[in-house]
Amino acid sequence: MKAVLITIGDEILSGNTVDTNSNFIAGELKKIGIPVVQIFTVSDEIESIKNSLDAAFKLGDLVIATGGLGPTKDDKTKTAFKEFFSDEIVLDSETFDHLKKYFEKRNRGHLLELNKPQAEVLSKAFIFQNENGSAPCQMIQENGKIVISLPGVPYEVKPLIKDKIIPFLAQKFSLNHIVTHTISVVGIPESLLSEQIESWELALPNDISLSYLPVGNRIKLRLTAQGKSEEKLEQRIDQEVQKLKPIIGDNVISWSGDNIEEILKQILDEKKLTVATAESCTGGELSRLLTSISGSSTYFLGGIVAYDYHKKIEILGVSEKTIQDKTVVSEEVAEEMSFGAQKLFKTNISLSTTGVSGPNSDEFNNEIGTAFYSIRVNDFEQTNRLHLPHFDRNDFANFVSQRVLQDLVEILIKEKY
Amino acid sequence: MKAVLITIGDEILSGNTVDTNSNFIAGELKKIGIPVVQIFTVSDEIESIKNSLDAAFKLGDLVIATGGLGPTKDDKTKTAFKEFFSDEIVLDSETFDHLKKYFEKRNRGHLLELNKPQAEVLSKAFIFQNENGSAPCQMIQENGKIVISLPGVPYEVKPLIKDKIIPFLAQKFSLNHIVTHTISVVGIPESLLSEQIESWELALPNDISLSYLPVGNRIKLRLTAQGKSEEKLEQRIDQEVQKLKPIIGDNVISWSGDNIEEILKQILDEKKLTVATAESCTGGELSRLLTSISGSSTYFLGGIVAYDYHKKIEILGVSEKTIQDKTVVSEEVAEEMSFGAQKLFKTNISLSTTGVSGPNSDEFNNEIGTAFYSIRVNDFEQTNRLHLPHFDRNDFANFVSQRVLQDLVEILIKEKY
Repeated sequence: MKAVLITIGDEILSGNTVDTNSNFIAGELKKIGIPVVQIFTVSDEIESIKNSLDAAFKLGDLVIATGGLGPTKDDKTKTAFKEFFSDEIVLDSETFDHLKKYFEKRNRGHLLELNKPQAEVLSKAFIFQNENGSAPCQMIQENGKIVISLPGVPYEVKPLIKDKIIPFLAQKFSLNHIVTHTISVVGIPESLLSEQIESWELALPNDISLSYLPVGNRIKLRLTAQGKSEEKLEQRIDQEVQKLKPIIGDNVISWSGDNIEEILKQILDEKKLTVATAESCTGGELSRLLTSISGSSTYFLGGIVAYDYHKKIEILGVSEKTIQDKTVVSEEVAEEMSFGAQKLFKTNISLSTTGVSGPNSDEFNNEIGTAFYSIRVNDFEQTNRLHLPHFDRNDFANFVSQRVLQDLVEILIKEKY
Repeated sequence: MKAVLITIGDEILSGNTVDTNSNFIAGELKKIGIPVVQIFTVSDEIESIKNSLDAAFKLGDLVIATGGLGPTKDDKTKTAFKEFFSDEIVLDSETFDHLKKYFEKRNRGHLLELNKPQAEVLSKAFIFQNENGSAPCQMIQENGKIVISLPGVPYEVKPLIKDKIIPFLAQKFSLNHIVTHTISVVGIPESLLSEQIESWELALPNDISLSYLPVGNRIKLRLTAQGKSEEKLEQRIDQEVQKLKPIIGDNVISWSGDNIEEILKQILDEKKLTVATAESCTGGELSRLLTSISGSSTYFLGGIVAYDYHKKIEILGVSEKTIQDKTVVSEEVAEEMSFGAQKLFKTNISLSTTGVSGPNSDEFNNEIGTAFYSIRVNDFEQTNRLHLPHFDRNDFANFVSQRVLQDLVEILIKEKY
């Protein structure tokens, strides 16, 4: 079974909204062995939607469309589906009852009549009720194909997919498993890595595929295989991973994790170490990354975003003289910030960042794109500098934060803390 | 001129990576009046890439493809382009010189030979050199159409688009302008808003389009128009906006801003107020949102992420008794946190969050998805509760943070601080 996604919405095409639904849906489908083979992102126009349905049918057996189901005039997905399937739109009493409860629960009973059209669905459709919004999810099965229309709001999409669509598909079809395995490599450029593992790569079985995914200066090697038995797939992939150990073992910082924050969690849990942060140029991104992992509260105790430089002095105890002598974007200030955070939060590890993210230079005329970050593990300390002049503000904060966590992982592995 | 984007990469289709390039490129193209009419996301397979080029040519005059240009075996875009355009791949000496400088600058001269294939390009292509990576950007012009192939790494894509592709297109074509204008409405559901402004909406000129974009409980009304004179377009849109004032004026929190953090910046700059944060369940997301805006350092002085509850006591001065009596996820703790932050950072405004983001409940058995947030403006204070049981961890942090900023905007507008 192959899936095609259709993302419907002018707000995506206009660059206003990033489409995160496709990413979520593709990830969930992969878990039950359904690969997504293509994604169409189209405008809120009846013809575009119909054309994409047509194209999607040629590529897959399962089509999942998101968006265009709001109660307003700019939303046209339902009409496009009606025309595409030569169907009628009818008021569904079960959906109407659900809608009634939905509005009553929110003390908005007076809005029911106005939203009645949201209970009008395709006559052929099977309905999955939406617990978090007024637009129901409709499914049509025709000629052995399945088409599902979902609303576009991510927090309506996620529970519908996770709690209703995926269980339905997993139960109805005897599906393959897709197993992926990620190895994180550092300290070697992609071209050289590719050369070093060439004979291993060429000897991989045909049904195990390899991708190189660079993230900053880390390269994720991802192995993927598909088949009936999850256990067997995992065994076969593991055999290949074992062969890689003598070839690039020294450059590997994780044999199984994916995100750097997950890799770090494994290590911190094992070593029972705690972490605090003191951020300036990353503005909270570093602690956000750390706390994005469930269970992070066991090792992440807290952080300071000392954005104004007086706060670096008052709260973190950075010396005013250091700031005057070296400016706020300096190795010395990064070091004093991590020292202050370790003391304030009483943690084993502290991480600090200070830099100029632009687009304007700072009050000390430091060069845009410069960042210093300090990593402290017990009484060990290391400061590094990054120079990223072409990065926009948010990419800069994210890149620096990722690098801090990656360097911490490297230190914890190599230095055996 | 119409544009079609092609995103090439198995890592997108597998749900591993969110495609942020399309969003950026669409936004930049819009600024010079080129609408994106469709996006194809396809796998790293030669046939898929060729088919998408074929389909893209039918829909637009400008095709921009990203991804699949790495030096490793899993990247196949160049071969697909070669076959599609029946062209040859040749070593380009200028690109090779650029590559040489690129590696030398990074003290990686020894890697040049290995990366030589990166200087091999389509013989028909015009080359835009890549300052931040080894894969050049290639452009082919044929039958009045333009096709551009870019690498996939976002921080390579952004400067290529901004500094090279956009200036080239803007100079070559006499383009239309696309003007958009966003009005932010709160305190009224989408269906009711749609009814209230129905006659205004139906009377809009044909070439001004309206979209409803819900973000939490805020609705963004977006007006879009396209034409030769930017000034005239803005005047015409403004006329329509003026007519809206008597109809929904009381519910509008911004007549022009888009993101809530931008809307807040305008107000804080005008009123010369400073802000600090004290976060728990949002884990840094609130300060990240605040600092994502350039110039935020004039009003955002800093924040605390007090993740461990002892830190709420030690650093923010929350009383241990309050935590014991009310648990850490309570109105009272939220209030004491904002009080502590206002005192610690000496700001006019302080914002705090405390909640349970899940997937696991906290040590006090509070219900997953519960959050309290407190907003303090000078001696005014307000605490609210949110209940978002179906949200995943990161959506929860983002939703709560957005809501805090939105409520702050409402308070600042209505209470005239």
